[in-house]
Amino acid sequence: MAIRPTITLTTDFGLDDEYVGVVKGVLLSFLPDVQLVDITHSIAPQDIQKAAMIIDRACRFFPEATVHLAVVDPGVGSARRLLAIKTSRSFFVGPDNGIFTAILQSESTIKIHHITNSNLFLSPVSSTFHGRDIMAPIAARLAAGMDIGKVGPLVASNSCRMLPVSSPQIAGHQLTGEIICRDRFGNLRTNISEQTIKAFAGRREITLRIGSKKIAGVCSTYAEASAGELIAVMDSFGSMEIAIVCGNAAGELHAAVGDKVWITFSEEQGKQGFKNNNTP
Amino acid sequence: MAIRPTITLTTDFGLDDEYVGVVKGVLLSFLPDVQLVDITHSIAPQDIQKAAMIIDRACRFFPEATVHLAVVDPGVGSARRLLAIKTSRSFFVGPDNGIFTAILQSESTIKIHHITNSNLFLSPVSSTFHGRDIMAPIAARLAAGMDIGKVGPLVASNSCRMLPVSSPQIAGHQLTGEIICRDRFGNLRTNISEQTIKAFAGRREITLRIGSKKIAGVCSTYAEASAGELIAVMDSFGSMEIAIVCGNAAGELHAAVGDKVWITFSEEQGKQGFKNNNTP
Amino acid sequence: MAIRPTITLTTDFGLDDEYVGVVKGVLLSFLPDVQLVDITHSIAPQDIQKAAMIIDRACRFFPEATVHLAVVDPGVGSARRLLAIKTSRSFFVGPDNGIFTAILQSESTIKIHHITNSNLFLSPVSSTFHGRDIMAPIAARLAAGMDIGKVGPLVASNSCRMLPVSSPQIAGHQLTGEIICRDRFGNLRTNISEQTIKAFAGRREITLRIGSKKIAGVCSTYAEASAGELIAVMDSFGSMEIAIVCGNAAGELHAAVGDKVWITFSEEQGKQGFKNNNTP
Repeated sequence: MAIRPTITLTTDFGLDDEYVGVVKGVLLSFLPDVQLVDITHSIAPQDIQKAAMIIDRACRFFPEATVHLAVVDPGVGSARRLLAIKTSRSFFVGPDNGIFTAILQSESTIKIHHITNSNLFLSPVSSTFHGRDIMAPIAARLAAGMDIGKVGPLVASNSCRMLPVSSPQIAGHQLTGEIICRDRFGNLRTNISEQTIKAFAGRREITLRIGSKKIAGVCSTYAEASAGELIAVMDSFGSMEIAIVCGNAAGELHAAVGDKVWITFSEEQGKQGFKNNNTP
Repeated sequence: MAIRPTITLTTDFGLDDEYVGVVKGVLLSFLPDVQLVDITHSIAPQDIQKAAMIIDRACRFFPEATVHLAVVDPGVGSARRLLAIKTSRSFFVGPDNGIFTAILQSESTIKIHHITNSNLFLSPVSSTFHGRDIMAPIAARLAAGMDIGKVGPLVASNSCRMLPVSSPQIAGHQLTGEIICRDRFGNLRTNISEQTIKAFAGRREITLRIGSKKIAGVCSTYAEASAGELIAVMDSFGSMEIAIVCGNAAGELHAAVGDKVWITFSEEQGKQGFKNNNTP
Repeated sequence: MAIRPTITLTTDFGLDDEYVGVVKGVLLSFLPDVQLVDITHSIAPQDIQKAAMIIDRACRFFPEATVHLAVVDPGVGSARRLLAIKTSRSFFVGPDNGIFTAILQSESTIKIHHITNSNLFLSPVSSTFHGRDIMAPIAARLAAGMDIGKVGPLVASNSCRMLPVSSPQIAGHQLTGEIICRDRFGNLRTNISEQTIKAFAGRREITLRIGSKKIAGVCSTYAEASAGELIAVMDSFGSMEIAIVCGNAAGELHAAVGDKVWITFSEEQGKQGFKNNNTP
């Protein structure tokens, strides 16, 4: 039995209208046996940044050859390009508006095609719903095994629109990062990775500050602290997050995307910034 | 390989309780290989009108022989009939409460059956959850290829309950339509189709009014206007909608379903009500 | 054709982040052809009680050998055990925090295994996302037919954590139950079953009281009362619920989980507490 192809969907369509269903109807019309997976449809309208992060985090866990369809497309009907991308393990279909920034930065062997072959589209093509009329047919055909070269010409990756990426800044003993996302639990994701902290502080003790709150060290799990305690913890994707154990950090700290997080280290040696180095 | 059958679900169950999962469990118990697609479960409790519009818009994009299960059923337990409908390309299962108004009006060859054959139901049948006990088993059996005649006797389409349909009214130089839906983006759908406007205004310039706001002409895409601009645009289903580019028209206009939209035309000839006639 | 295996998901992940998609990606990486069904992802963070009820109600309606994956896991990273459970018809995978209380109480032949075989996990295992790294791989392997004995040692059911279960109390002519859940429609589920009422009141007339409101008798369907009327009705799972026909009882009564419901009976014989005894 051939492996069943998978298409994921990440959109700002919400779940109240018929848009998601319509896109799935088109996908199934081309490929009745496809495995359809919703990543999320709750992206705030036009929040390309959040969509980019979610697709980057989710795509790594899907089977090879999965097609990731991303429709957050405020430029629909403008001259913005639609892209089909092939990486070493996945396909991506969506607008050239920065939504694939992380993919284009992290993957080494990439082919990027400008979707221009209108023979592959629904007919007629509407002016306002290219997710349905162009992207869904392309995604379904790629999942069915069509060669990506058929969608249109290759384009250079440096011609693609990229989102500005905020990186932590280091000045002397201080590292400055920021909140890049809050999740459903009110956990605050930062742009500070485990590697960055280790390179910055080595084995020295670190202290974090967010707003007027201080946090000593980084836990390796929520369970190291008590319910209600404010902690920093390495999340399951290798980034530092600020959390309140069994609580809602975003709500209690009134913290928002873009807020700064500062890390300093003391001169004491022989102790570990990370409270627990038994993590696998 | 036989084509995998698809069943879609449109309900007012919400996503917080176990109702959707239970209906899917029943469907899979009859047909483990079925492709299940959620259209929406966010219909406001008992909002048959919205459900009817969503099913009508979504069903056209699904493969032939798809079964559309519609459970917005405030009359559960009353004498209201349950129907199974076969059109030239799809099946529909749901209560006879007007939810299939658009389907019954737009499809030419239709067989409508009153679901009465209790041998096909779960046993016992509850008094409060016919989506689970009656409609799901019928939908699964139709998707599996059962002849629709087995569900119960044919009924005449003029015996089916229909929702009142609001049509635009024309008086002299003025066309009066109304808002029939707002979507997730705050776009306001009207009951005015492209055909209606063309028949009304021909090639003359038109002006729209909603509340105290005026809009000149109809865009063919959001991208023709600037962010923040209030526009009228033909949506991807052929109806006129009122939108704010990258904004929320419903919120900013405080507009609601039922609000009127007026269109007038000037006597100037040779210009087009539609700003752009290159739309495919 | 072998029957396609099904895995259901019940979590507190919400639908806004990538967590659900990531878990599904892992499941599909092990078992591309699996049928995935969302029961709900809207469990309030850490609301094990609600999750336990939903899983109990939903699981009965799924095909044999379905695997139910339950990730409401505030103890992630602590010493809490993860369990794989086999009942006469289903599998369950989740934390040992009481989420399977109803399953362990209602099923007779049960094998409970402590998940310890790290060869079956993703590698590395994170400290904060065991749904992805441990539970999903185990669920997928069980759905694929792996012997449950491979996950780890058998454990005794009396070693498993159980939630306190509130049972109705009877004192003389009065039965005291409570609200255990409100659903999307504002219907209030109680812990009072049809059997309990019949054993308590026999064929005598009963009166319910919730807050300052009285309700005479139990309807067998919403349709026995008029829109806006406050009623008690036997729900489709055999429990009594308080509802307002075509309205929202929770909202109008300001009722919450834990509120008491009192039932008394009169001495009159020959009438039925249930208004309608034709229910199947």
